[in-house]
Amino acid sequence: MLINGTQYRSVWFEHGRLKMIDQNKLPLEFGIKEYANYLEVAAAIREMTVRGAPAIGAAGAFGMALAALSAPDEKFRSYLRSARDELISTRPTAVDLSIGVNYVYESALKFIPDLPHARQVSVLAANEFANKSADDCLDLGVVGAAIIPDGARILTHCNAGALATVDHGTALSVIRQAHKQGKNIFVYVDETRPRFQGARLTAYELEQEGIPHAIITDSAAGFYFWKSEIDVVITGADRVCLNGDIANKIGTYEKAVLAHVHEVPFYIAAPDSTFDFNCAKGEDIPIEIRDEDEIKRINGSYLANPGSPALNPSFDITPAKYITGIITPKGIFDPAEAAQKVQL
Amino acid sequence: MLINGTQYRSVWFEHGRLKMIDQNKLPLEFGIKEYANYLEVAAAIREMTVRGAPAIGAAGAFGMALAALSAPDEKFRSYLRSARDELISTRPTAVDLSIGVNYVYESALKFIPDLPHARQVSVLAANEFANKSADDCLDLGVVGAAIIPDGARILTHCNAGALATVDHGTALSVIRQAHKQGKNIFVYVDETRPRFQGARLTAYELEQEGIPHAIITDSAAGFYFWKSEIDVVITGADRVCLNGDIANKIGTYEKAVLAHVHEVPFYIAAPDSTFDFNCAKGEDIPIEIRDEDEIKRINGSYLANPGSPALNPSFDITPAKYITGIITPKGIFDPAEAAQKVQL
Repeated sequence: MLINGTQYRSVWFEHGRLKMIDQNKLPLEFGIKEYANYLEVAAAIREMTVRGAPAIGAAGAFGMALAALSAPDEKFRSYLRSARDELISTRPTAVDLSIGVNYVYESALKFIPDLPHARQVSVLAANEFANKSADDCLDLGVVGAAIIPDGARILTHCNAGALATVDHGTALSVIRQAHKQGKNIFVYVDETRPRFQGARLTAYELEQEGIPHAIITDSAAGFYFWKSEIDVVITGADRVCLNGDIANKIGTYEKAVLAHVHEVPFYIAAPDSTFDFNCAKGEDIPIEIRDEDEIKRINGSYLANPGSPALNPSFDITPAKYITGIITPKGIFDPAEAAQKVQL
Repeated sequence: MLINGTQYRSVWFEHGRLKMIDQNKLPLEFGIKEYANYLEVAAAIREMTVRGAPAIGAAGAFGMALAALSAPDEKFRSYLRSARDELISTRPTAVDLSIGVNYVYESALKFIPDLPHARQVSVLAANEFANKSADDCLDLGVVGAAIIPDGARILTHCNAGALATVDHGTALSVIRQAHKQGKNIFVYVDETRPRFQGARLTAYELEQEGIPHAIITDSAAGFYFWKSEIDVVITGADRVCLNGDIANKIGTYEKAVLAHVHEVPFYIAAPDSTFDFNCAKGEDIPIEIRDEDEIKRINGSYLANPGSPALNPSFDITPAKYITGIITPKGIFDPAEAAQKVQL
C-alpha cells in the first residue's frame, strides 16, 4: 500500500524480527513497531496494534516463527505448542489467525529433530503464508473490480484495507482496482464504532490513494440507502462458513439487511485464509465480546454515563441469504458454493 | 424527572428568566443555565444545550416570551417577528419548535395594542405550552405502557427522555410507566452517534430511575435482533406527517428496517406538538445537515482521518410502513390514521 508515497505492507519480517505498522496510532501518527518474541506479538494482537483478519493471520504466522527461533532445544515441541495456543487465544472470531499459526506450527514440526532446519522452515512458511495472503488480496481485487460499475457509490464498513491484510486489502482491494481502472467511484465509509477503524483507517487509505470518499456515522448508511444513493456494498470478513454465512465487524449484519431491503447488491471480499472448512454455519462462530470501556471511554474520558453498563460484541453474523456473492481470488461465487469452489 | 433525588423539568420559566438543564454537560456534570433574552436561547438551541423535539419546542416558546418581555414598545410587532424567525431557524427538522414559537407569537399579537397585557400573555402562553407538553408526555407514557410485556427487552435510540421533553419523555415515558407498573424490563440503549445522546442522556435517566439497561453501539442492535433478544423498539420523533411517516434522529430508520425484517414491533411515541398537519409525507421534511466536526472530533481531538470529509445528516425518515403504531396521549394509532385522530 502507498503511505506518503512509499510502498508498505502492514506486517513483515526483517532481520529476525516482526515489523508492523501501529494501527492504534494511525492516522494521526505513522509508526512501525518491532517484535522479537511471540508473547509481545500476542499482546499486540490483543491490543489491536494489528487488526483485520488476514493481517492478524500473518502476524500470528510470524509470531510462530519467532517462537521457533527462540524455542529452547530441549523443549522445542512443547514451547511451540504453548506459543500456538497463546497466539490463537488472542482473538477468537477471525479464522485466519489459527490458519496462519497452525500452518507455521505444522511446517516446523515436520523437521524435528533437525531443529536448525525446523527454525529456518518456520520463517519460510510464515513468509510464504504472508506472501500468499497479499497475492490473494491483489487477485481478488482484480476479480472483484468487475462488479463495480462506473459511477458507483459504494458503502464499506470497518477497514477491509491493506492495513487489515498484508497488502492491498479485501473490500478495498476491489475498490483500489476499480479506481485504477479509471472508474469514477465514491465511497461511503462507515466510521465503525467503537474503534473507528472506518473513520481512521479506511478513510486514511482512501485519502492516500486519492479515491473520493466521505465518512458517515454507522447509523447514517440507512439514510443514504433510503435516498437511493448507495449502489453496492462491499465488506471484508473474519470468517466464511461452509454454508456461506460470514462473521465480520459488528454492524455488517445491519448493512446487509438494509442492502437486501433496498435491493442493493451486498458483496463479501475474502482471501482463502478467511474460509473455515470446519465451520458449518454462522451460529458456530464464536463472537468476541470486548471490554465495555471501548464503548464508554475515549482517551480516558467518558463518552457515556459512567454508571451504566455497556455490551460490546465485536462481530456479528451475516447469513448467506443476504450476501449477493463472495469475491475470492478464484472468482465471485454464490455464498453457498464459495467454500467448495475455494477448496478445489 | 428525578435527578439525584430531586424533581426537575428540562426547561422552565422562573423570575422572568428561562432556565434549562445543560444537556451538553450531562452526565458528567449537572448544571442549570439561565437565559434573559431570545438570542441567547437561539444560540443554546443551536449548540444543543437543549435538544429533543418537545424540549426545544418549549425552549422556543419561552424564548418568544423573553422576546415579548424585552421588545421595545415602538416596534413590538416587528421585534417579535424577528425573534420568531430567528428561533425557528435554529433547528429545521423538529416541528415542535415552530409550533411552540408560533403559539406564543400569535397569543401575544392578539393583545396588541395592549402591550403590558400582550407581554403577560406571552409568558402565560409559553407556560401553558410547556405544561401541556409535559402532561401529554405523562399521558402517552400511561397509554403506551400497555404495549410493554412483562419481561420485555426494549431497544431505544437517541434520547426520547424527560430531558428531550419538558418532563417524563416520550419513549422513556412509556418505559418509566412500564417500570412503575412493576414490569421486569431491560433496555438496550443505542449510544447514538455522533453526539452520544443515548449513551450520555438516556443511560443517565435510566440509571437515575433504577431501570435495568445497557449501552450498545448503534451497529450492535442488529446482532441482538439476530439473537432474538429484542422484543420491542420504541423511539421518539421530531416530526410526524399526515401519512404517518416520521423524522427522528439519524439511525432510527435502520432500526425500523431491522425490526420489520425480524417481525419485532416498532413504535413511535409522540406528543401532539410533534404532529405536523401541514406535512403530507416524509420526503417533505427538511433534514438538518450538521457540521462534519461532530463526527470527526471529540473534545477537540480527531477520532477520524483529518484529511477526509464527513457527511453528517442529523435525522432520517422512517416510512409509515415500518411503524407498528404511534403512541400518543389520546391512544395508540395506526401511523396512517394518527394525525387525524390526534387532531380530533
